[in-house]
Amino acid sequence: MSETITAMASPNIALVKYWGKRGDGSLNLPNNSSVSFTLSENILNTKTSVAVAPDLKEDAIYINGELQPKDQKNEKTTFISKIIEEMRKNAGFSDNLLVVSNNSFPTGSGLASSASGASALVFALNEFLGLKLDSKELSIIARRISGSACRSMAGGFVYWKKGELDDGSDSYAEQIAPQSHWDVVDMIGIVNESRKKVSSSQGHSATTKTSVLYKSRPEYAEKNADLVVDAVRNRNFAALAEVVMRDSNNMHATMLDTWPPIRYLNDMSWDIIEAVHDLNGKNGESIAAYTFDAGPNAHVITTAQHANEVREMLSEVMGEGSRILEAPVGSGPKLLSEKDSLITGEFLKNI
Amino acid sequence: MSETITAMASPNIALVKYWGKRGDGSLNLPNNSSVSFTLSENILNTKTSVAVAPDLKEDAIYINGELQPKDQKNEKTTFISKIIEEMRKNAGFSDNLLVVSNNSFPTGSGLASSASGASALVFALNEFLGLKLDSKELSIIARRISGSACRSMAGGFVYWKKGELDDGSDSYAEQIAPQSHWDVVDMIGIVNESRKKVSSSQGHSATTKTSVLYKSRPEYAEKNADLVVDAVRNRNFAALAEVVMRDSNNMHATMLDTWPPIRYLNDMSWDIIEAVHDLNGKNGESIAAYTFDAGPNAHVITTAQHANEVREMLSEVMGEGSRILEAPVGSGPKLLSEKDSLITGEFLKNI
Repeated sequence: MSETITAMASPNIALVKYWGKRGDGSLNLPNNSSVSFTLSENILNTKTSVAVAPDLKEDAIYINGELQPKDQKNEKTTFISKIIEEMRKNAGFSDNLLVVSNNSFPTGSGLASSASGASALVFALNEFLGLKLDSKELSIIARRISGSACRSMAGGFVYWKKGELDDGSDSYAEQIAPQSHWDVVDMIGIVNESRKKVSSSQGHSATTKTSVLYKSRPEYAEKNADLVVDAVRNRNFAALAEVVMRDSNNMHATMLDTWPPIRYLNDMSWDIIEAVHDLNGKNGESIAAYTFDAGPNAHVITTAQHANEVREMLSEVMGEGSRILEAPVGSGPKLLSEKDSLITGEFLKNI
Repeated sequence: MSETITAMASPNIALVKYWGKRGDGSLNLPNNSSVSFTLSENILNTKTSVAVAPDLKEDAIYINGELQPKDQKNEKTTFISKIIEEMRKNAGFSDNLLVVSNNSFPTGSGLASSASGASALVFALNEFLGLKLDSKELSIIARRISGSACRSMAGGFVYWKKGELDDGSDSYAEQIAPQSHWDVVDMIGIVNESRKKVSSSQGHSATTKTSVLYKSRPEYAEKNADLVVDAVRNRNFAALAEVVMRDSNNMHATMLDTWPPIRYLNDMSWDIIEAVHDLNGKNGESIAAYTFDAGPNAHVITTAQHANEVREMLSEVMGEGSRILEAPVGSGPKLLSEKDSLITGEFLKNI
């Protein structure tokens, strides 16, 4: 076992969305399969270092420089602790661990870091503890920390199979095409959000419990996932685009039908939606597709060929000085060398 | 037959919405029953005068002072001509008619005038031609001009029965409680709309054709209509409020799920939605209910007791100088006296 292991992972953008959990929700088992591509780690990433900490009375987890309190109400952090405990036990290991995790994300961007964070942690722990778990097992563990994180355990284009079993052992993500397969990019328009936000965890539950319209979403999304897999395999952008946009609209419609209603799209999101339809209309076929997660940020998917056009369109709609990130397809989680460790002498001196 | 007949009617606000037509759409037959109350004619009204015009080569229809062109693409005006032709034929009448119709609506308010316009016209023609049609027959004719107009043929609280027959002879509106039954008001926040609008006629068709989620709306709305009828009969505002808000959200969700998506709500509409939820939360029970038609204007339903509170809430959210109309329940269409005729010597001189 090395003294310190450092891993890096990146978020993914869902082309068919995960919204609504089956069972009691605790295992993050989805009502439908979903598809994503992993974003380039050069644009957005989480780095996570793990080391033994025999001097500590308990595990210490630092996220972006802050020690995470133990006795707290953040479900996600509690879950991280549980997963660490379980993986350590499986490895027959007993020492307390020091986990240090930093996100490269622009501050206040509203871009979800839980997928890359969970993915980097599980990847690092597997190596550190010498567990040699396969990609399916790793994906299942990441899913339990944060549902869509399972899709960040692979690079390229990824399919998260819904699965049928109650224990979730058949609900994990697999690569359907590698990073090199297709030069699509996610052009991300960072849209300010001033209103209070419903956490996606609360949202999943509220929609499945109260939306009448949601009942028809799982079957629809399941079909969309199949269509997107085909479109990716055939590199058929026009086919991909329509399904991606309709699936996003469909999910946000079930959010509006939730009681009380959930709003993630704002006027700027809608202006971008309309600008994408206009751009595609002018081109005679779809060269761009918008998709929105649980927030107003616009993810406009396009191919490298049309990236500049799409960037210009976004700039025009969002105004000068707007923040736009261009994320190609990424390669998935990987180990970094000792010199990239976040657990430096400097770090240890300051904690 | 009098020389000139003048009638007045007012719009209605749907508590359960009409969205989506059955059949080929030409008869405006709805997929679900709906419920409304007619707004006070003191706040919003259409006045329509009808007179013989033997000197004219064809019927002349003036709306807000403008002669409506014959050879045109406006489906609604074409339909008005057809209805006039049909009613005249039924009366065994042959002279050409002069129809003059004026709306009292604030300019550019985005408030639909087609319901009050169709209602006033049908009411005036029935009297002018001496047809003595009953309220059911009048409602059916108004429905054919503009679906929701059939609900403006009665005052007070109105139920528009979906009906089952292909010819629409069982799809008409009836009063379920008179104006005096309950002192609810429609506090209307006029929200500016800067984007291009999808006409409701196009929208009805696009949603039924393309929205996957719409499939479950008719059954849901049908139940909502029953619940609202009960809530109105029992003057149970809290029960009314939840159904009204959910039905509006549900309809707008199917619009978002339409391909391409239809947006009527904007950030201001959403700010009002959230403010209503906050107000109700603070009060411990619902004292206000928002509902939105095919536009961003907020209709906040409340009782006379809470009207000031609701007006203040709207002013605060919309900012100073915002336009707010307060419309109590109205009495339905009625005839006006000769002195209210729009066909004056002055008018005839200027055409």
